[in-house]
Amino acid sequence: MIAAMLDEALAAFERRLAERVGEHPACSLLREALDYHFGLGAFGPVRRGKRLRPQMLFRFAFQLGARIECALDAAAAIEILHNYSLVHDDIEDRDELRHGRPTLWARYGVAQAINAGDAMCAISFLALAESERELGPARGLAAVRELHEAHREMCNGQALDLAFESRAAVTFDEYLEMIAGKTSALFGAASALGAICAEADAAAVERARRFGREYGMAFQIRDDILGIWGDESLTGKRIAGDIARRKWSFPIVWALAQPACVARETVASMYASGRSLERNEVEAVRNALDELAARTACEHAIAQRLDTLQRFGDNDLYRFAADSLG
Amino acid sequence: MIAAMLDEALAAFERRLAERVGEHPACSLLREALDYHFGLGAFGPVRRGKRLRPQMLFRFAFQLGARIECALDAAAAIEILHNYSLVHDDIEDRDELRHGRPTLWARYGVAQAINAGDAMCAISFLALAESERELGPARGLAAVRELHEAHREMCNGQALDLAFESRAAVTFDEYLEMIAGKTSALFGAASALGAICAEADAAAVERARRFGREYGMAFQIRDDILGIWGDESLTGKRIAGDIARRKWSFPIVWALAQPACVARETVASMYASGRSLERNEVEAVRNALDELAARTACEHAIAQRLDTLQRFGDNDLYRFAADSLG
Repeated sequence: MIAAMLDEALAAFERRLAERVGEHPACSLLREALDYHFGLGAFGPVRRGKRLRPQMLFRFAFQLGARIECALDAAAAIEILHNYSLVHDDIEDRDELRHGRPTLWARYGVAQAINAGDAMCAISFLALAESERELGPARGLAAVRELHEAHREMCNGQALDLAFESRAAVTFDEYLEMIAGKTSALFGAASALGAICAEADAAAVERARRFGREYGMAFQIRDDILGIWGDESLTGKRIAGDIARRKWSFPIVWALAQPACVARETVASMYASGRSLERNEVEAVRNALDELAARTACEHAIAQRLDTLQRFGDNDLYRFAADSLG
Repeated sequence: MIAAMLDEALAAFERRLAERVGEHPACSLLREALDYHFGLGAFGPVRRGKRLRPQMLFRFAFQLGARIECALDAAAAIEILHNYSLVHDDIEDRDELRHGRPTLWARYGVAQAINAGDAMCAISFLALAESERELGPARGLAAVRELHEAHREMCNGQALDLAFESRAAVTFDEYLEMIAGKTSALFGAASALGAICAEADAAAVERARRFGREYGMAFQIRDDILGIWGDESLTGKRIAGDIARRKWSFPIVWALAQPACVARETVASMYASGRSLERNEVEAVRNALDELAARTACEHAIAQRLDTLQRFGDNDLYRFAADSLG
């Protein structure tokens, strides 16, 4: 039953997302930037993300008894807020490609892209506030608070990520604090919003939030793997771009926590260089990570998080988590 | 009576603002950036803005019967959101000074400044959501919607302002649309939030919003005057920086709408140059504006807006508007 609802909800979600992005008055350049980013109007269709946050939201909502209509605006809101963070992160990380297309700043310049991201943030919360029609004001406001709390945590995680760029070493605890904010908080909010849309009690909302956060940690480690060993044609990003920019991803932090050996020192010295890495240096780091079996360590860390998710005792949610991290 | 309440409220406001900015967990760099911007902790005290938006909010709130406590979180929220927009605008406009100090991006870099601005946005709305304690969820959510609607309009105005940078001409209507979004919307929200804090009815909220918007238009024209003829020691900005960057401010748009003459052509040709203006070129534009009596035209436009504000029939509010625009 929930599988059929999900299919219907995801189709309705795409329509609602386009409606919420498109319904506000905007000058022609801002309209174009929004349409370009979301692949709407003259810019569609484009390759899309997997809508994992809306999927997570819907799964908790439907499992806890919500109707589709009750969850659509919240799902649109979380996807729009996620995209606002992508637009700003791409500027901050100087990423020029996403899903194989120029990022918003690469196409419209930094100034317009900062501002278009800001507009997405406003549009996200205006969509979420529309939940009031179905959920009433108390749950509508609780939803706003939930999502802005995650928004604040995302900024904290991103501040750490940026600060780490000039560091010669990052500990595991620091890495975990960074991804808890940058990635995990929004998955936590997605799950919690699903429960709020189902008018669940505080304990169920908290349980959903914990599931989403745990999933988010595993998701980021998987994303870190793709950022180093991923197929460019699938990720739409530059191969091993995370290494070139000396990003402190899981495999790197793990490698530097290993006992001294030649491979570890290769990674350490490259990351202490204080500059972007050349193609041959990126290869050297990747070879060193392979020698250390860093990828196996990542897979192990993901498996541990999945074990925790399995102990929530919900097989449908666990299968979704395991499949999407597979 | 309202004057005494205002003094008390503005003192309590400064404490509430510091509390709301400081209460969230943040990594050391984000904390430092927030403290630096707001002049808190080790960075205080600094020269501050005039808190005009909180003042406007308080005036409507108290006049319509609100207690101070009911309006403090909304006042903190609107001031924090205003500062978020300043932080992003300074990046987008490449402004390196504000109130005589380096702007956030000039000190911490563009990436951290974008992100710190984003964090301010989240903190603003988390503060506003706290209004629920005094106002209940329905008015709390109405307040969130009011402020995010203004947030969205601000982004639209800023998109226009940025787009105008590469234009050879901007009409009066285009200029008015730009400042209606960029400046006037947030003053409208300040006034409307004041009415919401007083649990006023929809008609009173709408009336307050209209007053604030009209005031905001006049405020921007006054700001345009200061941007060209202002005293650097008072504005804390570069003299005539708006001309150097060929910003389409009221005096410029007005000058280009005048019949052809040498002074008009001077302004037109400099603004059609497609590049930043040198010091002697800025002087030439300013001399041409003086010759055209553009400043008198600005004062006339402000006086017209003040006439409209006077017709609202509230002498206290009118005096505040007139004095703060004087």
